Amino acid sequence: MPPLPQHPILQKSFAIIDREMGAHDLPLEEYAILRRIIHSTADFEFRHWLRIGPGAIPVAIAALQRGVPIITDVGMVRQGCQSMVRRTFGNRLVAAVDLAETAELGRTRTETGILRAWEQFPGGIFVIGNAPTALQALCDLIQAKPTVSVPTPTPTVPTPTPTSIPAPALIPALIIGAPVGFVGVEAAKATLAATPVAQIRVEGRKGGSPVAAAIVNALLVLAWEGQP
Amino acid sequence: MPPLPQHPILQKSFAIIDREMGAHDLPLEEYAILRRIIHSTADFEFRHWLRIGPGAIPVAIAALQRGVPIITDVGMVRQGCQSMVRRTFGNRLVAAVDLAETAELGRTRTETGILRAWEQFPGGIFVIGNAPTALQALCDLIQAKPTVSVPTPTPTVPTPTPTSIPAPALIPALIIGAPVGFVGVEAAKATLAATPVAQIRVEGRKGGSPVAAAIVNALLVLAWEGQP
Repeated sequence: MPPLPQHPILQKSFAIIDREMGAHDLPLEEYAILRRIIHSTADFEFRHWLRIGPGAIPVAIAALQRGVPIITDVGMVRQGCQSMVRRTFGNRLVAAVDLAETAELGRTRTETGILRAWEQFPGGIFVIGNAPTALQALCDLIQAKPTVSVPTPTPTVPTPTPTSIPAPALIPALIIGAPVGFVGVEAAKATLAATPVAQIRVEGRKGGSPVAAAIVNALLVLAWEGQP
Repeated sequence: MPPLPQHPILQKSFAIIDREMGAHDLPLEEYAILRRIIHSTADFEFRHWLRIGPGAIPVAIAALQRGVPIITDVGMVRQGCQSMVRRTFGNRLVAAVDLAETAELGRTRTETGILRAWEQFPGGIFVIGNAPTALQALCDLIQAKPTVSVPTPTPTVPTPTPTSIPAPALIPALIIGAPVGFVGVEAAKATLAATPVAQIRVEGRKGGSPVAAAIVNALLVLAWEGQP
């Protein structure tokens, strides 16, 4: 596909970031993600914190092209992806917190919502830009189940097996882990790192809704422009 | 009023920030704003960039208590304030970009929206967390008019005058200037600094929706808890 049109201000911003980044050895697609994060934060420090799991980009691209739903933890992240989703694949876009009117006892509201989203949108892309509790709950669910290996980007015909292997569909296609803050944030990111799920993380305390949305938007552009 | 209930995670986060900030000489109310920005970004660098104009906090508190509308540039900022607005004064909350289906020729869509909001919501609180073009357009409008001095927080009975002084209502109660990015951002902030409007700015390239929303939310808490 031809490149998506870019506003001149965005082009100019990207050119400034390219210049100030200087030499680096990031693959083109990884740099596209980092550049969009820096664009949305004006913070070059993210170059030290971004972690892209092996195979995560092709898995994400294939999933977005298939039109899987995108589940964000909070409304701000959903809002930040909305316009690019509309311009590309029109994926269903859900803020998990909206699935929970109130918090379950001992949980945050976002965490409650993400547990419901896990049941309702298996195989979706889960995007955490705010609530470490939601990321932790998601990872705990994944670790509680015997997991299958990360799905390959090329769709395969499922082979029915007689043994009770858990449905791979219950594993998210991808988790974007970029909550921000001081309590439980680094621990939740460490838990994500230990899961076999395809993932893009921002290590450390930093992250946030614009960072999470920037990662989704960069992936949408890659997926759109990478179509035959 | 008694303090608004705080989630234990928020309390814990604030305690960590207090500890890591160490000694400082910020007045209590200014620190409440800074702390909420740091909470939403995990970035202590904002202590060097936050600028609170003289009288801005009491002006903001009085305006919020009066229930003036809050106009944000984009949906993400609105989303970030929504819950605290509901818990406090229920101010009308409008994202300027939603007032413009399309951009006017030579303007961005957000800029187009903010120009309409300027007409529709005079005397409101304008919050820019994303688009420097919107902040620039707003400041240009203010500079184009002979302005009155910053309104005092205590409501006064307007004295009719025979001369044609422009309606003070057309001056926003407060501008929060925290756009982020590389093109036109620092220039727009400098223009804001040169206006006589009550203001809270984040200097430099940094800013963003969570920063702008954090400032609004901190002001809402101060205004709520400061009620007799």
